[in-house]
Amino acid sequence: MKKNLIPPLALVIGASLIIWSINQGGSIGGFIDVPSLIITLVGSFCALLISFPFSDIKKIPIILKKVLITPSVDKSDLIDQFIELSRLSRSQGILTLEQEIGQIDNLILRDGLQMAVDGMDPTDIKSILEIKISNMEARHEVGQTIFLKWGELAPAFGMIGTLISLINMLSQLNDPSTIGSGMAVALITTFYGSFFANLLFIPIATNLKMQTESELEFCEMIVEGVLSIQAGQNPRTIEQKLSSYLDNKSVKSKEIRNSNISAVQSEVN
Amino acid sequence: MKKNLIPPLALVIGASLIIWSINQGGSIGGFIDVPSLIITLVGSFCALLISFPFSDIKKIPIILKKVLITPSVDKSDLIDQFIELSRLSRSQGILTLEQEIGQIDNLILRDGLQMAVDGMDPTDIKSILEIKISNMEARHEVGQTIFLKWGELAPAFGMIGTLISLINMLSQLNDPSTIGSGMAVALITTFYGSFFANLLFIPIATNLKMQTESELEFCEMIVEGVLSIQAGQNPRTIEQKLSSYLDNKSVKSKEIRNSNISAVQSEVN
Amino acid sequence: MKKNLIPPLALVIGASLIIWSINQGGSIGGFIDVPSLIITLVGSFCALLISFPFSDIKKIPIILKKVLITPSVDKSDLIDQFIELSRLSRSQGILTLEQEIGQIDNLILRDGLQMAVDGMDPTDIKSILEIKISNMEARHEVGQTIFLKWGELAPAFGMIGTLISLINMLSQLNDPSTIGSGMAVALITTFYGSFFANLLFIPIATNLKMQTESELEFCEMIVEGVLSIQAGQNPRTIEQKLSSYLDNKSVKSKEIRNSNISAVQSEVN
Amino acid sequence: MKKNLIPPLALVIGASLIIWSINQGGSIGGFIDVPSLIITLVGSFCALLISFPFSDIKKIPIILKKVLITPSVDKSDLIDQFIELSRLSRSQGILTLEQEIGQIDNLILRDGLQMAVDGMDPTDIKSILEIKISNMEARHEVGQTIFLKWGELAPAFGMIGTLISLINMLSQLNDPSTIGSGMAVALITTFYGSFFANLLFIPIATNLKMQTESELEFCEMIVEGVLSIQAGQNPRTIEQKLSSYLDNKSVKSKEIRNSNISAVQSEVN
Amino acid sequence: MKKNLIPPLALVIGASLIIWSINQGGSIGGFIDVPSLIITLVGSFCALLISFPFSDIKKIPIILKKVLITPSVDKSDLIDQFIELSRLSRSQGILTLEQEIGQIDNLILRDGLQMAVDGMDPTDIKSILEIKISNMEARHEVGQTIFLKWGELAPAFGMIGTLISLINMLSQLNDPSTIGSGMAVALITTFYGSFFANLLFIPIATNLKMQTESELEFCEMIVEGVLSIQAGQNPRTIEQKLSSYLDNKSVKSKEIRNSNISAVQSEVN
Repeated sequence: MKKNLIPPLALVIGASLIIWSINQGGSIGGFIDVPSLIITLVGSFCALLISFPFSDIKKIPIILKKVLITPSVDKSDLIDQFIELSRLSRSQGILTLEQEIGQIDNLILRDGLQMAVDGMDPTDIKSILEIKISNMEARHEVGQTIFLKWGELAPAFGMIGTLISLINMLSQLNDPSTIGSGMAVALITTFYGSFFANLLFIPIATNLKMQTESELEFCEMIVEGVLSIQAGQNPRTIEQKLSSYLDNKSVKSKEIRNSNISAVQSEVN
Repeated sequence: MKKNLIPPLALVIGASLIIWSINQGGSIGGFIDVPSLIITLVGSFCALLISFPFSDIKKIPIILKKVLITPSVDKSDLIDQFIELSRLSRSQGILTLEQEIGQIDNLILRDGLQMAVDGMDPTDIKSILEIKISNMEARHEVGQTIFLKWGELAPAFGMIGTLISLINMLSQLNDPSTIGSGMAVALITTFYGSFFANLLFIPIATNLKMQTESELEFCEMIVEGVLSIQAGQNPRTIEQKLSSYLDNKSVKSKEIRNSNISAVQSEVN
Repeated sequence: MKKNLIPPLALVIGASLIIWSINQGGSIGGFIDVPSLIITLVGSFCALLISFPFSDIKKIPIILKKVLITPSVDKSDLIDQFIELSRLSRSQGILTLEQEIGQIDNLILRDGLQMAVDGMDPTDIKSILEIKISNMEARHEVGQTIFLKWGELAPAFGMIGTLISLINMLSQLNDPSTIGSGMAVALITTFYGSFFANLLFIPIATNLKMQTESELEFCEMIVEGVLSIQAGQNPRTIEQKLSSYLDNKSVKSKEIRNSNISAVQSEVN
Repeated sequence: MKKNLIPPLALVIGASLIIWSINQGGSIGGFIDVPSLIITLVGSFCALLISFPFSDIKKIPIILKKVLITPSVDKSDLIDQFIELSRLSRSQGILTLEQEIGQIDNLILRDGLQMAVDGMDPTDIKSILEIKISNMEARHEVGQTIFLKWGELAPAFGMIGTLISLINMLSQLNDPSTIGSGMAVALITTFYGSFFANLLFIPIATNLKMQTESELEFCEMIVEGVLSIQAGQNPRTIEQKLSSYLDNKSVKSKEIRNSNISAVQSEVN
Repeated sequence: MKKNLIPPLALVIGASLIIWSINQGGSIGGFIDVPSLIITLVGSFCALLISFPFSDIKKIPIILKKVLITPSVDKSDLIDQFIELSRLSRSQGILTLEQEIGQIDNLILRDGLQMAVDGMDPTDIKSILEIKISNMEARHEVGQTIFLKWGELAPAFGMIGTLISLINMLSQLNDPSTIGSGMAVALITTFYGSFFANLLFIPIATNLKMQTESELEFCEMIVEGVLSIQAGQNPRTIEQKLSSYLDNKSVKSKEIRNSNISAVQSEVN
């Protein structure tokens, strides 16, 4: 787990750009309108509260923290870890892995190895891990769906706000000279809706989706690795199998790093 | 089954916000227009009546009640129930489950256990339960589809209403000073369409979809549990299997609660 | 087969509502414009003729008749029929079903039973019935697709009509006082496109889709039933299997009705 | 292969309707604007050239010819052909089919029969034919995708053209009386984009899609037929199997036509 | 690998067309506005930075290079190569392929052959190659997704820019004569968003998608070929199998070219 500063930085730069753009032809003061903000954000949040179970809505802060923190899904490290575990298991027996398990952070890997050590049937291990993974995926998907929906609802409530202002203005149209400023106020909720959807909610939903995809691939590697270790496959085969998940550049840099490991390990076999 | 007050509360807050926003620059009176309401809501309802069989439309009140009442799909409780049933079945024979069945509310669980007690073939039990579940899902999907369609049709009829008012106004344009108020009236149906779609129909459709997904997962656990009991698996394995459906936090809190149960149950095995 | 009057009634009510709404602020005369009707309906129909083979377009009247007539897909009756057939087959041999087949309307059921009586291999029966069903589905889908496309093309041609009127009006803009009536005429094609799409074409497409889904489920039950009869399963099992396709309310009302049948039939076994 | 005159005729009628509609309130001269045509059509074509490999773009004339010529996919004829081939193969040995193959136009059928005569393994025949079919489908899909994309890009470039004209006009707004004609010119590219997309590109894409679907079904029948002939199944079974692909009306008319064939053929068996 | 000049050429022509179209009714100077460019491009890029991991964003230059360079995926050459390898393997043993492997550029082919030479189990080879291919596909898909998202975000930020200018202009509306030029400036960001999305980002995304599809098909052929060689199938069968991936024209031109090869090779068998 390490902090990922790029998303908040990009948000700050994007928001600054928009403020700078506003100041090019007017002043930021004309764009701050609390009632408009309330109708756009709180209104769409009410629609979210109707759409999703409250237990999911409560997780929004946790979900947001995920955008700021990159989970450690280093595939190269995982391969090294499996090579290590495989060597240990083949030289000293699979039961010696028991003491390694405590130091593992990744829950899927820990549970998988524990079941392998317990001598559970490989088909059962596979199906239990796959249920765990698909449920993890389902839970992450709720986060994406909430932000995706918010990204649809915010502009919709922005448009509702604009319609309200327009109808109010048009029905009291005594002095034509006020049309301009009335229209300006009416368009602010549309602006808010578009701003929050395109710079915040939709990018967050995409971010969560990309993270889920990368975690799923990582979990797939874990399942492959755990089953290979239980089957007693040799470290070289495990490395070859799991390296299929790396792109070519990573494979090459890995090969240089691992040339020693391979040398050592080939003696073991 | 317990009442879920959050959706109606969120609706009230959202609607109040919109009324408050209207009062900021005008009066609520200018937004109440019964003919506009009729064309938007009744018009789109007519289109629904053409789209869906009347037997499905009649279920709208029942579907709405589902939004207000959360079904008891507590996965932790279900796991406890299966551990209990498994212990009973292993110690006193599967036939003793017969008397437990009467007290079970969940129909899928009841039918599943009944078939297990009747000694039906596991493949048959699985396929019958899966047909039941997929038909339950299909019936729930009709509810979602109706509200999703209504969420599309309401803004469409809102726009039809606006077009009618605009055409009427423009074709009789003698006094330019009436354009403003004419436009205001024309936009009210657009406002109604957007309001009902985004604060009511689409959120209800999403709500129903989330409920169906959570019920499906629950049913999947039931199928897994019933088959495990019939296969005579020990309570510990059943717990481990079904716990894959819980997230990590729930697992942990469960483990603390269940430590006694496990202790007791390990003596049985 | 019985007439379903709700769709045409809903169409009449919906159209009346719109006429009433027009009369609120103008007269229906201003909304009747034959050239606009031609460009919207005939124009979009020309695009349909390019899109679909003429042999499919010719089926539009037959497809429309399907909206007015509900096919008899009473699942409860089907289950009763299968129980009856199963009893007959078990007591007097499967060949006695031959004479029953002539009285069956449903073609899938008739062909399925005929093949079962002919002693064809169950796998072959299943695959032939599934090809028949998937081809029936493909044919029905063409109907849905035509109306769905029409629902997209009608507003598009409505907009083309509006663009034509707007360009004509704007390029000859000598007397500003004619803008209003010019705009009114221009918007009529948009109104027509939206009206036909949302009250007619899209609802018809949805209606056909719902019918196909319900027929598919019915056919699925037939396949299940035919194979069960050929396998010589007892009526009670067939009932239990097929009841999975009913919702709980239907099951209950069925159980009351069938209690006698079951009583009778249990003597047979 | 026979010419299909309906699509070009429908296009001519549709275009005439639009010209007639233009002449109702103006003159066709005001709608002909070569620069607008270039920006809409050539602009969107440039975007196509970036999107698709040139080898695919070059096939546009061939693809267009497909819209004008209906391939001979008469399912009834195909069934008759298979019955004939099956009788020949059963009475005189599968090798006699060798001389029939030369007269067959359809490449999938020809290759399939050749492999059957060569005594290739049925699983191999099936997998080779399926690869051929899925590659044929992939090639046809490129044609659909190109026209679908063009149907999206043409209105987009139409809007770009309108934006250009609007910005030019608005930035030089000295004489308000020119707004009308300026707007008229600006809207012409939007009109072009909508016209080409809805009367040409999208209908062509749909047309190609329907043709591919019908060809796929035809190919599926061929695979089924070839494998049945190789397996030496009797003509009656082959007819029954392949008739599942016909709708009921076609089956009936077929049965009348084929009653003689069946009579003859039943003697053979 | 050879340069593909068509995409950049088409881009230059498309952009020139638009400049020419601007010059028809105004001057290009009025369309160059650096702040508008910044809000549209940099703003949408900030949203991309929130959406995607930075490691993916960094690959944009590499992705763009892919649009300019066509990978050598000549299916005919690949078939020739497999025929050659198959002859070698059958006449002198599969181990002789070891020295050929070094000269092969395509990584999937190289790894596949290496595993075949190493005598790895065919099922393992297949599953490892499929993991490699599906991971390659996943990596390519990120490129498409980035440009597709950019194609959605650019018009969205264009609209945000237009809203900002409109609100600024409308709230300071003292001199009505400035509306025109204000609107012109406001629309420039909309123009930029539409221009970049439709001539650049969306076409690039489509281009990448078509390339991935063609590479996937190529990889599928490689897997088929490698497994056939390991299974020791004869060159004629391999040719026949892999030719299923060619369209008919390519097959014919291939047959002429290969008639000699076949002649030679038939002696070998």
